[in-house]
Order: sequence, then C-alpha cells, then structure tokens
Amino acid sequence: MIKVYNTLSRKKEIFKPREGNRVKIFVCGLTVYDNSHIGHARTYISFDVIARYLKYQGYSVFYLQNITDIDDKIINRAIETGEDPLHLARKFEEKYIQDMKSLAVENVNLYARATEHIPEIIKQIGTLLEKGFAYETDSGVYFDESRYPDFGKLSNRKIEDLNVHRINPDTNKRNPGDFALWKKKNEKPYWDSPWGPGRPGWHIEDTAITEEYFGPQYDIHGGGLDLIFPHHEAEIAQMESASGKKPMVRYWMHTGFLNVLGEKMSKSLGNFITIKDLLKECPPEVFRFFVLSTHYRSPIDFSQEILEQSRSGLKRIYKHIETIEELMESDIPETSSKDEEHEKLLRETRKNFQEAMDNDFNTPFAISSLFDFIREINRDINDSNISKNTLNDIKIFIKEIGNILGFEFVLSKSHDDVADELVDILTSIRGKLRQRKDYELSDEIRSKLNDLNIVIEDRKN
Amino acid sequence: MIKVYNTLSRKKEIFKPREGNRVKIFVCGLTVYDNSHIGHARTYISFDVIARYLKYQGYSVFYLQNITDIDDKIINRAIETGEDPLHLARKFEEKYIQDMKSLAVENVNLYARATEHIPEIIKQIGTLLEKGFAYETDSGVYFDESRYPDFGKLSNRKIEDLNVHRINPDTNKRNPGDFALWKKKNEKPYWDSPWGPGRPGWHIEDTAITEEYFGPQYDIHGGGLDLIFPHHEAEIAQMESASGKKPMVRYWMHTGFLNVLGEKMSKSLGNFITIKDLLKECPPEVFRFFVLSTHYRSPIDFSQEILEQSRSGLKRIYKHIETIEELMESDIPETSSKDEEHEKLLRETRKNFQEAMDNDFNTPFAISSLFDFIREINRDINDSNISKNTLNDIKIFIKEIGNILGFEFVLSKSHDDVADELVDILTSIRGKLRQRKDYELSDEIRSKLNDLNIVIEDRKN
Repeated sequence: MIKVYNTLSRKKEIFKPREGNRVKIFVCGLTVYDNSHIGHARTYISFDVIARYLKYQGYSVFYLQNITDIDDKIINRAIETGEDPLHLARKFEEKYIQDMKSLAVENVNLYARATEHIPEIIKQIGTLLEKGFAYETDSGVYFDESRYPDFGKLSNRKIEDLNVHRINPDTNKRNPGDFALWKKKNEKPYWDSPWGPGRPGWHIEDTAITEEYFGPQYDIHGGGLDLIFPHHEAEIAQMESASGKKPMVRYWMHTGFLNVLGEKMSKSLGNFITIKDLLKECPPEVFRFFVLSTHYRSPIDFSQEILEQSRSGLKRIYKHIETIEELMESDIPETSSKDEEHEKLLRETRKNFQEAMDNDFNTPFAISSLFDFIREINRDINDSNISKNTLNDIKIFIKEIGNILGFEFVLSKSHDDVADELVDILTSIRGKLRQRKDYELSDEIRSKLNDLNIVIEDRKN
Repeated sequence: MIKVYNTLSRKKEIFKPREGNRVKIFVCGLTVYDNSHIGHARTYISFDVIARYLKYQGYSVFYLQNITDIDDKIINRAIETGEDPLHLARKFEEKYIQDMKSLAVENVNLYARATEHIPEIIKQIGTLLEKGFAYETDSGVYFDESRYPDFGKLSNRKIEDLNVHRINPDTNKRNPGDFALWKKKNEKPYWDSPWGPGRPGWHIEDTAITEEYFGPQYDIHGGGLDLIFPHHEAEIAQMESASGKKPMVRYWMHTGFLNVLGEKMSKSLGNFITIKDLLKECPPEVFRFFVLSTHYRSPIDFSQEILEQSRSGLKRIYKHIETIEELMESDIPETSSKDEEHEKLLRETRKNFQEAMDNDFNTPFAISSLFDFIREINRDINDSNISKNTLNDIKIFIKEIGNILGFEFVLSKSHDDVADELVDILTSIRGKLRQRKDYELSDEIRSKLNDLNIVIEDRKN
C-alpha cells in the first residue's frame, strides 16, 4: 500500500489511481531558454524514481511532460543572441534531453511541446470564454480569478490576501490576480487565433496538453515547490473551470528546493550549476545517489562535501558487489547452515526497503535498509559463513534495487578494471627490469604504454 | 517530402500528418503467450527506424503499441503449463520488452495492455450496439459485417467472395463473417460487462486503445502483412462504425514476411527462431543491419549466409570508422586542396541517403549510398588526400546516420581494444624475456595473466 503526500490536502493519502492499474503522471517540464541545472536534475531524478517504483509495484505508468518552447524568456534570450526563438528552443530542448539521458532519467513516455498544441490551447481558451471564466481585452484573453473562488487552495492562500500585495495593478484586467491565457502580439513568433494573432500564456499549455492526453482528470501532477503558486493554482482554476469536473488531479507532489552552500541557486550569486558542468566532475550515478539520499520533499544542500559522502556511500555498495562477485568465483560451499537466517534477513530487508518506498517514496530510509543489510552480511562473509545460494539471492536483490533506484549495479568485472590490472602488471615488471638494469626492455614498456596515452613517471622512492 | 506506401490506396502517398507536426503511430503488439521470434523482430526494427527517421525530419512522434495479454492462445498455453494466464502473459511480456531492448528498439512511447483497457473496450462495444452495428447472442456480442459494406477494402476482397469459402458456419451469427466483440465466458479470467461476464474479442482491444490515446482518427497504423485480413479489416469496421468518421487511419503500413531458408517460419517445420536464441549467436546490430538491408515491405529470407553478408557489410563501416579515428590522431593537415570536393561528396551522400529514406523508408538504398561514399573517400585516404576538417565532418555524418538507423557507431577506441593492446605488450615483453632466458620474470607475467583468466600458450614457432 503506497502512501503519497498530497500538497493539496497537506497529508499523506493512500495511493489509488483513477483507472484500475493505470497511472497518469504529469510533471512540469523545462522552459528551454538555457541549459538545465542541478535543481531540475533533482526534480526529474525524483520523479524518475517514483515512476520506477510504481512500475515495480505493477502499475502501468503513462508519464507525460510538457516542453515550454514559447515564452517571454525564450524570446528575450533569442533577441540577445540574434537567434530564431524556436530554433533556440529546439537547441536547448535537445541539450535537456541529452542531460536527462546522462542522468538515467528515462521514464518519461512523451514530451509534448507547447507550440505543437496551439489548437488544443485555443480550444481550451474558447471553452473558458464560452463558460464565462475568461474575458477578452485589447491586450489578450484573461482568466477571471473572481469566477473561481477556490483560487489559492493548493498554496493555502486567500485571493484577498494575494491581491493586497500587488503593486502597479494592470488596469487592463478586471482583478489584479487575473492571468493571461492568450497574449495578443504581432511580432513573430505568433499564431492565429479567434482573438487575433498572438501567443499562449504560460499556464494554459499544461492543462491543454494534459486534457489532450489524459482527459480533464488524472492521477499525479508533479513539479518543483516553486511552481505551486501561481502556476499550479492557475492550472487547477483553468482545468476545473473548463471541464466542470473536480478534482483535476488526485495527488499533487512537489519536490523541495536544491540550495548551493545554503543559498538559493541564482546566476547573480554565481552559484548556478548546470547539469553539463556537474557531470564534468561528478559521475551521474554519484549525483543520483546524492539526490536520493534526501527525501524528495526536503530541501537539499549541495556541496562538494556532501557529494563526497555520496561517492563513498555508493562505493560501499560497489565494494560489496565486488566482494560477492569474487566469492562467487571462489571455492565456497553451495549451501550453509546459515542459509535460512540469511533468507530471513533478505526478506526483512526487502520488506523494509518497500515499506520505506511505500511511505511517500522515502528513498533515504530505503537506502539505509540496504546499508544495514550489507553490514550484517559482511560480518558473515568475514566469518566465511555464507553459501553460493545466498550470494545468488543477494545478487538478484541488489539488481532489483538498482532497477528501482536507477543504478546499473554492474555485477561483473568491467573492462576498465582489467585494463587497470594489466597496467599494474606492466609497471611491476618494468620496475623489476630496472632493478636488473635491463633498460632496453623497461624503456620499451614505457614507450609502448606512452603510445596508448598511459604515462609512467619514475620518482625517487 | 516523405512518401509512404499506403496499403489501403495501394500507392505511395505524400506523408502529411493530421495535426501539424505531430505523428501518431499505432503498431499491433505481441500476443504474449510465447517467446518473440525473428519475424516480430523484423517488424519492430522496421517501425523503430521509421519512427527514428520521422523524428530526424523534425516530427514529434507518439508511437503506441498494444500488448495482447488476454486471448485463447494465452489461456490454452496456461492450461498446458498449469500457470495463471495473466501471470504467464506478464512473464512473456517482460521477455518481449527485454528482447526489444537488446535489439535497440526503443521508440515505442507507450505499451498498453488489453486487460487494463476493459472499460474502454466495453464502452466501444456499447457504442456499436447502440448504433446498430453489433448484436448480442447467447455466446457473446458480434459485429454485424453486413452493416459495414466497406469490409474488405484494405485487403481488396469482397464480402461475398469471403463468405463463399467459409465452412462450418456458426449458426449463432447473422453472417458468416461476423466476429466477436465480447465472448461470454464463466471461466477465469473474465470481466464483468453489461452482457455478463466474459472476455473481449481480439480485434476490439486495438481500436479501444487507439481511441483512448489518439482519438478516432490518426496517422499511421502498422503491423505485419499477415494482419491485414481479418484483423485490420475488423479494426476499420469497428472504429469507423463507432465514430462515424472516415478514415480511421491515414496510412496503413505493412512489413513483409520473414522466411527461413525459403519457408514460412513455423514450429512444425522446426525452423522457428526466437530472438533470444538468435542473439546467442548473432550480435543484435548484425541482425538489425540484416533487416535494414531489405526494404521493409519486401519478403526477407533468413539464412546464415545472408547474415554473414550483413556481418561483413557492417564490418566495412566499422573498419572505415577505425581508419578515420586513426587518421585523426595522426599527423595529417587541417585542410586540403580536396576539401571542397569532399564537402560536395558529403552533401550529395546526405541528399541520396535522405532521398532513399523519403521514398517509403528505403533503407537498403540509403545504406548503399553510405557504402558508395566510403568507397569514394577511401580512395583519397589511400592517396593521403584528406584533411582533419573533412574527417571531422565525416564523423558527424556517420553518427547522424547511426542515430537514424539505430546503430551506436562508436567512434573512439573501446576499452576492449586497450586491454587487447596491453596483453600484446605483455606477450611481446615475455617473448623477449624468454629469449634472454629470464624465466623468473616471464613466468611471473604468465602467472599474473592467468589470474586474470588470460591464458598464454607457448608453441614451437
């Protein structure tokens, strides 16, 4: 039984999809005007693991993401660089997809571009106008906040409180909180609409896209915490008004912030880290492990120090796998008197792992159950109290966990390791040749390794 | 401009999706009662490349496949093996997905199981009953063939001709060609319906699933040639009758048969080859190359001989990549007097490649344009008439082609190669040590290599 913390109800609820075994998840995608950063990586790794665990539990998952490829940010950036806005958007979309691939974020079924859903957007705006939830002005079409009294229910704010703080209210709008569904524009890129040429507002693409692929109601809507207000509030207002059906979404899930050294990541602070830059220094699985070592709703503080902890945590798991692999090839018995005990331990670990994941996808607890297990088993390995049968079961279990968390826990010696060991042999032979003063052969080894770009340095001592 | 051969019109038509840039493709998936075979592999590799090429040409592709996880074949197999039918189906589904992964078939966005779309199936049957296209009997709900005069339009047959040949007509049905939409059954697995407990017929799941995800009309429906009659005829009859909209699909695409040594693959002939067995002997990319060396609509004859030809064809490409890679690291000039000529050759090759692919995805012609290119370029490589700039452009071009056809044309030295070269160095040093009669060190090398499972044999000469 999976429990999910629902931002809307502010409590954990039992997870039950609307349509039997099928789960429809929508997560807000990127506005593709720049490289994606490690805050995005945190959100998308989190939802990748959520999708993986739902599949592991037998659900069929349809995970949809939009791509915001038309937006003021994109247009402004394109003006700066002199590029075509849609071309610029495609370029950063491609980089984004590449970044996700590098991070093993691979469970999104469909990426839907805003610009390719203009007819759906226009249709939904038309419905909102028809039903009186929106109005047209000289500058565009706006959603009338006052017609949707529930506005603020997700972020727990009241419309009155919201509006008090607005300065420079747009006199074009009926209420200060009204937001644009369609912006009338004559500069490219624009699209034709019943209200003249223009561009969609930011909020409407998501509900037009989810209505097209999921219908007016679905299971999970996810995104970063910073999107709750006003973006997700606006989505609810649009969709529930247009369809007349409530709730638009059963479970609202939000990932916590990722800070850098205690501060919000921002270009002006100079602590803005792109995924591409991160991966120059850090293997993708170390960053994934770092992300999953904190619960998805909690804030994460990014620092080299904590990244190092993740690196050594992950290393412990790989070390364990290596030990098992070596033992499997050695002369240990097929069965042992402790088999039953180990089976029980495995069963309990699997149970603890699943209980943690069932509890609002608590990955840090799940991971710690794996570490507890490794500690216990290592004791018996050291005492030579383990059988091949058990080792085999452990291998299967670790592979299972790898699938859920998104790690390729490789269980056989990699080619790199073999090459490393071969270099070690050559270096040791070369040392002995130098002791024998056979400089001809020792120099031959050095020069041939050099040809392979492997450099040997001789130092005193 | 892409042209697609449409089985329905029996001619090549200009490809134009219904909704701007978005392409919706549905391909009939597997009935998961056994391991998938190389005939399936042929179909799914073909549509994988079609999806890849459409994406390369800038289309957004939503590629949907059903999984038939309830069917008489599954139930009969489950009775034979004593398994639960749904469990058996899940097991073979998992193997199927694994097979596809091995073959780099990775462009299906969503797999939809029949058993998870029972409400949609019941809804569509209800519509057909309401509109008078179906009728209920004691044994089930049937589609009334006589109400759909276009039946046979895809396979170019007439209903009258079809019915003449039927023996043992089912007296339960109004017309001999009527087919079951719902089969009334009391044995498990069954689902409740307005017509009592039962199971869906085979044809209805596809149209219920495509209506759910695509709506009543979409772009491409694909599958093996053997599915045209009666399966795809039935799909058209169901969907066009239920929605009242024509055509259900813009382009019907069918892959040709794969025969083994000139004969149809069948269990009784003993020439039935599963993907799993194939991949024990044959690298997946060799089989992919074999499939793409024939046009998707033509029959393929599978034999070790032709597979060998594919292996050597693919080797020529890899050899070319290796040559380029080595040259890049050598001391050749940045530019050459022939650069312009090479640029022109690249442009023409890209054009020829695309023209072949635009022409109903003619992969054999596309591949042969690549071979022509390699032949031309090799001549200038042999005459030392090539620059680094050109080599770089060739690398980019080959990577592009690899993406379209689904090959990871790896352009840098693999770890395996490094290990091989390290072993070569060790063996050569060991030979020289033995000439010097330094048996201590030569034996040390042998024994250390032995530890890595690398065995050195000394032979006379």
